[in-house]
Amino acid sequence: MRMTEGVEWGLHCCLVLAWLDDLAPLPVGRLAEVFDLPPEYLKKQLQPLAKAGILRSEAGARGGYRLGRAPEAISLMDVVTAIEGGTDPFQCTEIRRRGAGRTGAPEEFAHPCGISMAMRKAELAWQRQLANQTLADVIATTPATAERRTRRFVERIA
Amino acid sequence: MRMTEGVEWGLHCCLVLAWLDDLAPLPVGRLAEVFDLPPEYLKKQLQPLAKAGILRSEAGARGGYRLGRAPEAISLMDVVTAIEGGTDPFQCTEIRRRGAGRTGAPEEFAHPCGISMAMRKAELAWQRQLANQTLADVIATTPATAERRTRRFVERIA
Repeated sequence: MRMTEGVEWGLHCCLVLAWLDDLAPLPVGRLAEVFDLPPEYLKKQLQPLAKAGILRSEAGARGGYRLGRAPEAISLMDVVTAIEGGTDPFQCTEIRRRGAGRTGAPEEFAHPCGISMAMRKAELAWQRQLANQTLADVIATTPATAERRTRRFVERIA
Repeated sequence: MRMTEGVEWGLHCCLVLAWLDDLAPLPVGRLAEVFDLPPEYLKKQLQPLAKAGILRSEAGARGGYRLGRAPEAISLMDVVTAIEGGTDPFQCTEIRRRGAGRTGAPEEFAHPCGISMAMRKAELAWQRQLANQTLADVIATTPATAERRTRRFVERIA
């Protein structure tokens, strides 16, 4: 069970767009160069972020992406949900109702399956931590040298 | 990002084997009937649980599976890890070192990537909840009627 690489790419692009908001919009090609990623594939990974309002896409010759809202208002959960489509990896298909369960009285299934509830409880703890950490929190843990270096790189290739 | 259906199957089979420990070992075919699952495919899903010591496989004409240890000593994490091979869905490939990162000083990468740390922090919360919930906890939330019904079903098909 793995997230797509798009989650790592998307989070790092959000970070760069937060750092370099004064240089935005940045074309996908330039973001791809910052991390040496395939531009066409990166474009596909960023599209759902734009659709979710996390990025704003600007058309035209000098177009590209900028952050759609403040880093404080972008949680890790927002990015993961936009790219992965959800964070509920456990699949409950209600197998308790199959086979031996066919003869179970309806009352027996009135409450959600105990296994499913326990798995969801764990997923909720994960989701809560993803929702509680914002892009601004990540920026606070990132060395200032990384920002300065990225800025110089982007200005040079502009 | 989805877990395989094997996790649901494995957890439910552990629950049945805990309930019916006095009838164990139960052949895979009988466990498959309890949930109307394809026996050959169920067998493949249970093998990693036996390898991890969560189930014990007994050979012979009256062989099959029984729990490998007490329900209190089997966490959800144990089952998920055995079947999924891990619970760290976020993949950090260190893209911060690529492209613009190539010219970064080694000190800049002395600490783990802030994005990766934030994602791991969230995964840890999930893993902690999976590790803190045992099969015994799940049994405590399951209606006694489900156990009795499953027992009757298994005794009938024996």
